Amino acid sequence: MPAADVAALVAAAREGGPRAVARLITLVEGASPQLREVMAALAPLAGRAYVVGLTGSPGVGKSTSTSALVTAYRRRGKRVGVLAVDPSSPFSGGALLGDRVRMGEHASDPGVYIRSMATRGHLGGLAWSAPQAIRVLDAAGCDVVLVETVGVGQSEVDIAGQADTCVVLLAPGMGDGIQAAKAGILEIGDVYVVNKADRDGADATARELNHMLGLGEARAPGDWRPPIVKTVAARDEGTDEVVEALEKHRAWTEEHGVLAERRRRRAAREVETIAVTALRERMADLHGDRRLSALAERITAGELDPYDATVELLEGLTGG
Amino acid sequence: MPAADVAALVAAAREGGPRAVARLITLVEGASPQLREVMAALAPLAGRAYVVGLTGSPGVGKSTSTSALVTAYRRRGKRVGVLAVDPSSPFSGGALLGDRVRMGEHASDPGVYIRSMATRGHLGGLAWSAPQAIRVLDAAGCDVVLVETVGVGQSEVDIAGQADTCVVLLAPGMGDGIQAAKAGILEIGDVYVVNKADRDGADATARELNHMLGLGEARAPGDWRPPIVKTVAARDEGTDEVVEALEKHRAWTEEHGVLAERRRRRAAREVETIAVTALRERMADLHGDRRLSALAERITAGELDPYDATVELLEGLTGG
Repeated sequence: MPAADVAALVAAAREGGPRAVARLITLVEGASPQLREVMAALAPLAGRAYVVGLTGSPGVGKSTSTSALVTAYRRRGKRVGVLAVDPSSPFSGGALLGDRVRMGEHASDPGVYIRSMATRGHLGGLAWSAPQAIRVLDAAGCDVVLVETVGVGQSEVDIAGQADTCVVLLAPGMGDGIQAAKAGILEIGDVYVVNKADRDGADATARELNHMLGLGEARAPGDWRPPIVKTVAARDEGTDEVVEALEKHRAWTEEHGVLAERRRRRAAREVETIAVTALRERMADLHGDRRLSALAERITAGELDPYDATVELLEGLTGG
Repeated sequence: MPAADVAALVAAAREGGPRAVARLITLVEGASPQLREVMAALAPLAGRAYVVGLTGSPGVGKSTSTSALVTAYRRRGKRVGVLAVDPSSPFSGGALLGDRVRMGEHASDPGVYIRSMATRGHLGGLAWSAPQAIRVLDAAGCDVVLVETVGVGQSEVDIAGQADTCVVLLAPGMGDGIQAAKAGILEIGDVYVVNKADRDGADATARELNHMLGLGEARAPGDWRPPIVKTVAARDEGTDEVVEALEKHRAWTEEHGVLAERRRRRAAREVETIAVTALRERMADLHGDRRLSALAERITAGELDPYDATVELLEGLTGG
């Protein structure tokens, strides 16, 4: 790929050019030589978008809910970015699935950017690439960035949990409440949505959730009490209530300094991820695969344990 | 927790003591001060077990298949370890689900160890804790270690993919074949299992898989051609065929030097993970959260981009 004119790309992205946005994401999510240039150009422009994470087990209707939220925010005149990090989503790899019907409506809307992201194979994994993609959508002038991740898998859950507001979706039946608890997603929700609420068991799921979240218990004044909203996303029922809950949470986070704190934490995580990736590369570069291979050989032979091997490896790397 | 007598624990584990095994895993998966001691004691004992990864989307019957494989290996007189890294598995967090009926049969069998692992919250995540747990089961004298992971999520898929043999499970319907491809699990299977083969569409799934894997195409002589086995794990149908396929793959990997290579690669990954975790801790220790916070603050203010922030952070860390 020839070197990009970063300033021109950034300008085009801010004018609403979807190709410029796509190109910028490609430049930041991988190990492009222009990565630093792009990141420097984006820095002063980012930090304006409201980042909403959506997560839940496969089958709860995350993509349909995301699509309904896009529609709702468009009705309010907002520019919306979607980052889909979900192997089961029709957004990600839609071409493979051959079904982009639902998104077709948004695909032709210049106020909507949709980006899907493979969950594997990147430089530093999702922890690296997702925040960079969010940063591009933010800098490109999106008012809202929806980050849809599957609520299974450590990296995926982490990404949604680091948003300004995190929505956890559930659906009646399938022991979802319990599964959610096991996957650790009950700790990260700011807003809970019981989707497919026209199905049997929706009330039971909401009750179970209410119980598990301890919503009946007293809280300190000023504490956030996550609301539980029932929706039928496929029929756009309850979407406005979700948006209202999001806006309430956003207002609460701003009022209590939580938003600024979350963003600092997100930025710190970003720095950590970049640092770890850089160190990983340095390890590979400086010592070459040969040294690591030799250690691995001794480990498989039972002559050395992995911990001592690491100490040997690091002595050379960070010492003197 | 008081300091453990590591030598006694290791001896007890090798005698078949399930509590000793459990205790050792607890010592290695977290940041126990005795971690190094335990790892050193295990090193000469590990490397004998055959490590089999099982992965697939939620709903394909991973846990039932794992259980059937345990039974099959027990019939052959093998000691079996199970590491379940799957939030949807009845093995993991079984107490929460209140359903250990299926494993009850194995739970009382002294030749079977079952360990479930939360997918979040550990020191260095799954990438750190799963290999250490496998190492304990291996050193404790398990002939076979079955590692069940959900085939969604980067870290989870990676763990299964690093086994001696990796089994990818699918089930008819639900567009599983396509989902598998999207989740990247089609690249890692050594043996494919179409479970729930009594359902409609099992042949279609097998055909689709056959096509996607390019199994109809010519391969170089000596290349491994992943078999596709149909099973009904709930009725123990096809399990012996799976075991045969596993044994064939194992023999092939031994013959072609692939097993040794995979194990070296796994050991190298382990070292890398430990090194990165150590560096992450050093970063936190040396510079404190204060320095990172100050950088994060400047990033959220748009004054600094994360990449430059990382450079600043690392200069202090690895320089001079």
